[in-house]
Amino acid sequence: MNNRQITLKSRPVGIPQPEHFALQTVPVPALRDGEFLVENLYLSVDPAQRGYVNDENNYAPPVAIGAVMRAMAVGKVTASKHADFAVGQHLYGWFGWQDYCVATPAAVLRRVDPAQAPLSTAAGLLGINGLTAYLALHDIGKPKLGETVLVTAAAGAVGSIVGQLARQAGARAVAVVGSDDKGRQAVADYGYEAFINYRQPLEPQLKASCPNGVNVFFDNTAGPIADTVIRHMAWFGRVIQCGTMSIASWVPNPTGPRIEREILTRRLRLEGFVIFDHLKRFDDTAARLAAMLRDGSLRHAEDIGDDIALAPQALVDVYEGRNTGKKLIRLR
Amino acid sequence: MNNRQITLKSRPVGIPQPEHFALQTVPVPALRDGEFLVENLYLSVDPAQRGYVNDENNYAPPVAIGAVMRAMAVGKVTASKHADFAVGQHLYGWFGWQDYCVATPAAVLRRVDPAQAPLSTAAGLLGINGLTAYLALHDIGKPKLGETVLVTAAAGAVGSIVGQLARQAGARAVAVVGSDDKGRQAVADYGYEAFINYRQPLEPQLKASCPNGVNVFFDNTAGPIADTVIRHMAWFGRVIQCGTMSIASWVPNPTGPRIEREILTRRLRLEGFVIFDHLKRFDDTAARLAAMLRDGSLRHAEDIGDDIALAPQALVDVYEGRNTGKKLIRLR
Repeated sequence: MNNRQITLKSRPVGIPQPEHFALQTVPVPALRDGEFLVENLYLSVDPAQRGYVNDENNYAPPVAIGAVMRAMAVGKVTASKHADFAVGQHLYGWFGWQDYCVATPAAVLRRVDPAQAPLSTAAGLLGINGLTAYLALHDIGKPKLGETVLVTAAAGAVGSIVGQLARQAGARAVAVVGSDDKGRQAVADYGYEAFINYRQPLEPQLKASCPNGVNVFFDNTAGPIADTVIRHMAWFGRVIQCGTMSIASWVPNPTGPRIEREILTRRLRLEGFVIFDHLKRFDDTAARLAAMLRDGSLRHAEDIGDDIALAPQALVDVYEGRNTGKKLIRLR
Repeated sequence: MNNRQITLKSRPVGIPQPEHFALQTVPVPALRDGEFLVENLYLSVDPAQRGYVNDENNYAPPVAIGAVMRAMAVGKVTASKHADFAVGQHLYGWFGWQDYCVATPAAVLRRVDPAQAPLSTAAGLLGINGLTAYLALHDIGKPKLGETVLVTAAAGAVGSIVGQLARQAGARAVAVVGSDDKGRQAVADYGYEAFINYRQPLEPQLKASCPNGVNVFFDNTAGPIADTVIRHMAWFGRVIQCGTMSIASWVPNPTGPRIEREILTRRLRLEGFVIFDHLKRFDDTAARLAAMLRDGSLRHAEDIGDDIALAPQALVDVYEGRNTGKKLIRLR
C-alpha cells in the first residue's frame, strides 16, 4: 500500500514556501505491537506549522529535514495492533501531511464521534481552532455584556468562531481583516458588528468602531496592528496573545514600540494562550461547540482543497490571508 | 502663618530636575466651610511624581506651572471647618510638597492611627509603597512555594518590602539592584536570597540566580533589564508591571524588542498595577502590614531628609537609585 507524504526538503527562514517541501510516495510499513494505522481523511493547514519547521524557540524540536511535515489530521483506524484503538475508530491527532500514519497513542489528541458533527469539523471547529476560540476567549478574555471584543485574522479558522462566541456572550465583536470582502463576510456570517480593513489607516477605523476602547483584544497577528490596538484599549482590558502571524521571522528579534506604559496606565492584562495546555478539556469543549453547531447557534467556515501536493501552497495562502475559515485538504 | 511650598517653575521633559522647581513662602489662607488645615509632618518622594509634571498620558491632568508640587504626605489636622476631620487627627493624603495644606476630604487617602506604627511609615510601608508591594504581589504575582520572584528596584520603597513578602510566601526572592552594596543590603535586610547587579552583564547572573527561570517578575523599571528578564521567565510566569522608572521619556514612544512571542510561547501573564484602584483595601492591608512590623516579621527601610528645599533633588536621587528604602522629607 502506497503512502503519499509531504516532507521537509530544506529549512525555511520565515514563512515556509512550496520549494521547502517535497512530495514522495513510499510503502506503508508493517505495524508493530502497540501501533495502529490511521488513514487520513482531512489534513489540517495551520499558521502554527511555520514554527514546526524553523529553528526558532518553540514547543517541540523542529521537523527534521526529510521527515513528514508535522500536521494535525482527522483519520480513521484501518488496522490496529493496539487494544484501545479499534479498526473503524475516528481520531484527531498528529498524523502528518500524508495518506497514512503508523501511529501510537501519543499521537492522538481526541477520539472523534462521527455522529457529533461532520468529520471535517474535527480538525477545525471541534479541533484546535474552535477549542482555542472558546477557551482563550472565556478563560482570558472573559467578555462582559456590552464590551467590545476586537479580533485580528477575524475571518480565519479561529477568528470566524471568536466573533460568534463573543456575540453569544453579549459583547460587540469587531473584526480586523485584510479586505472589505472579508469584512463583509465577517459581519454577515461570523457574528461581527463591524470590521476594520487593516490595509487602510487603522486609527480612524478604531475610533469609529470602538468608541469606548477595546475591552478584549483577541490577537492572532501581533506586530504593527497590535501596536495600534494596544493604544486603544479600555482600562482593565484583556489581551489574548494567541498568535503572531504577522511577524515573518523572530530571528533576529524584531523591535516595536514599547508597551510597558500602556500595560501600566491602562491596567491591561496580556496573556499567552497555547491550546495544548488544555488537552483535558478538549472533549467537553468540543461537545459544547458541536451542540451549538447542531442547534444552529454557531456556523463553521471551511476552505477545503483536495490535492495533497498543494498543502504547502495552502499554508502560504493562510499566511497571506487567502483562506476564509478553516483551511483543510480532503484526501478521500 | 507662613507656608513654604515647592512649586513647579517649568515643565520638564523626562525626569524633573531641581531647576524645574521653586521654593516660595506664602501665607496660609483662612479656612472656608468644609475645609481643614493639615500640617505636614512627612513629605513623600515617589518615582510616579515624574508623571504628575510632564505632558505624557497619565491618570490626572499635569501639575500647573506655578502650582504646588503634587505629592503625598502624612500630616496632622491643626484647624478644621469640617465635622469629619477633627483637630489632632493624623492623615495620609494628597497634601503636596509644602508645610501646610488647606484640604478637603477628596485629598485624603487614609486616616492614620499613630498607635499602629511610627508616623513616617504611613507614607511608606503603610502608604502606597507597602500597599503596592502587598497587593500587587498577591493579586497578580501569586507566588507559590519554591517559586522565584525577581524584583527590579529591589532596594527601593516598594522592592524592599516585596522581597520580604515573597519570602514569607515561601518563594525565593532575587533582587535586581544598581550596586553590590545595595545587593548585599537587599540580602541582609529585605528578604532576598540573591542579587543581580544590573551594571554587570545580566544573562549569566540571571542563569545563576534563577536556574529554573523567573516565575514572578515584579517590575518597577521596564526597559532593557525587563527585556532580558522576560526571556528568562518560566512557563506560566506572571509579570507585574508596577513602574517604568528606567524609561526617561515616553514621548516619542521608545522602541524595544517585541515580546509577543515570549508572551505566547512562555504562556506569560503581564498585568499593570496602579495602587489607586484599590483604595477600599488600604485600611485592611495597612493594618496587616503594621501587625507584621510590630511582631518583627517585616522591616521597613526609610531614607529621610529634613530640608523641604531639597525635595526636588531627592526625586532625582530616587531616579538615580541613590535612596535605600522609602525617601521622605521630615518637616518637624
